Amino acid sequence: MIAARTMAELHDAVRQCKQQKIHRAECPSIGFVPTMGFLHEGHASLMRAAKKQCGIVVLSIFVNPIQFGPNEDLERYPRDEAHDLAMAEQNGVDIVFLPTAELMYPEPTKTMVRVQDVTAPLCGASRPGHFDGVTTVVTKLFNLVKPDKAFFGMKDAQQVAVIQQMVKDLNFGVEIVPCPIVREEDGLALSSRNVYLSADEREQALVLSRTLRQVDAWLERRPDMTAPQLRELIVESIQEATLSDIDYVEILRFPSLEALLPQQSLADADARVLIALAVRFGRTRLIDNRLLENK
Amino acid sequence: MIAARTMAELHDAVRQCKQQKIHRAECPSIGFVPTMGFLHEGHASLMRAAKKQCGIVVLSIFVNPIQFGPNEDLERYPRDEAHDLAMAEQNGVDIVFLPTAELMYPEPTKTMVRVQDVTAPLCGASRPGHFDGVTTVVTKLFNLVKPDKAFFGMKDAQQVAVIQQMVKDLNFGVEIVPCPIVREEDGLALSSRNVYLSADEREQALVLSRTLRQVDAWLERRPDMTAPQLRELIVESIQEATLSDIDYVEILRFPSLEALLPQQSLADADARVLIALAVRFGRTRLIDNRLLENK
Repeated sequence: MIAARTMAELHDAVRQCKQQKIHRAECPSIGFVPTMGFLHEGHASLMRAAKKQCGIVVLSIFVNPIQFGPNEDLERYPRDEAHDLAMAEQNGVDIVFLPTAELMYPEPTKTMVRVQDVTAPLCGASRPGHFDGVTTVVTKLFNLVKPDKAFFGMKDAQQVAVIQQMVKDLNFGVEIVPCPIVREEDGLALSSRNVYLSADEREQALVLSRTLRQVDAWLERRPDMTAPQLRELIVESIQEATLSDIDYVEILRFPSLEALLPQQSLADADARVLIALAVRFGRTRLIDNRLLENK
Repeated sequence: MIAARTMAELHDAVRQCKQQKIHRAECPSIGFVPTMGFLHEGHASLMRAAKKQCGIVVLSIFVNPIQFGPNEDLERYPRDEAHDLAMAEQNGVDIVFLPTAELMYPEPTKTMVRVQDVTAPLCGASRPGHFDGVTTVVTKLFNLVKPDKAFFGMKDAQQVAVIQQMVKDLNFGVEIVPCPIVREEDGLALSSRNVYLSADEREQALVLSRTLRQVDAWLERRPDMTAPQLRELIVESIQEATLSDIDYVEILRFPSLEALLPQQSLADADARVLIALAVRFGRTRLIDNRLLENK
């Protein structure tokens, strides 16, 4: 595995890997896993998916300052490079790209890539400018890595929707591969931010996954339930956890993230339906979601 | 020469050209000339520069609707595909990409690439949204063509500055090659929009190039001249043409397009200095410019 810390090192590493893995005059495909580091099994599942589907796997570790708001956790965002490199190596990564902020933004960027509509609800509403920072850095990383496929976790379902919209609109020749949420045995969705949680908060945070699992039973009992009705049940369930502080609970069409008709039963929706939650426990904001696939 | 009308045809054409021109296991470089068609000798000079520097030359012809304002000349923009194809072939182009607006924008784009600061003065001020349309379509075309170098005429000096800023900020691996303005023998800068001019307007439009040439003599006579002083001489000179209607006359640093200090003599400027003009003759808005290179 090669650790590349500059654009030139990345470029050389990709060329070297291509030469090693070239088959029948066909260039091996490049699978790309962009991350902010402090890697966990969720990231590992993306690396393994990339390894299965592509000849060369590139992982990037970059805590992107421009996707953090002024009062967010940029400074205290957890980092552990040695652990990350070991985890990347174990999961078959060929190249890890670890640029500094100075290298990615030698001057403040004057150019931004902005997606509208899909970025408006959910985390886009709670974190103004967040997705502009995400789409801009993903564009930069796509231009540097030139991947054939890029792997994103469905835990940030809105990020998947936003990146897919950007790739379609800007004709990026990159296939976006969404991968399932990975959970602890007790149901908590894996997140680098879980380390912030106290023991009490972590215990209470289980209400998120428990509530999302509960949805099946609710829909079975009341198959004609509408989005506002289901939302009310979810809110009530989360509020039973006394440390919870709801940022949003939303039920939207996926991937457009448009509203459902308020009178329409969820079973009648002609699209996939996303149930998305953002809830604070103490200073820590957690997100989780579930996608209902109508037959 | 291959005329590609869809993304798939473009992709196949590039692959085919690469296979034909492959040398010592090195892929030939791709030179790209993006245009809006109605090609003239200015465009031809870009094609020839691309031919000289690159193994494969791709020309695109696309009148990009999203870079036109609501009261601009999108509908009447001149087109002549047969002439354009002949001119491309004569100048060594390998692939002409001619997508329709429906193909480039199957749905209205939700994603825009925006450059700030460099887009604020000059045509950015006169044509709100124009450069957002330019940077967005150039991103799309770069993603489709994947060029190594792209060739732009210095007649739209601000466009060169904006695209260079975008390429740097977004880490596009594309070298931007600015090429000199091409003029008629009498000095008129070549432009597809020159066909709009009546005989009288065309005659009077010569005031632009004449005034820009005149600058040397003015600076020689008064070497300590400041930007506001030179601007005044230019405005007076253009206003002698009775059909002229000045949109802007600006003297700025290039490529940042920042203002010069008003008291500073032009000879003392520590940067290249751009003199940029936009002037209407009847319904037709012409631009022209001159770059002063300080030693």
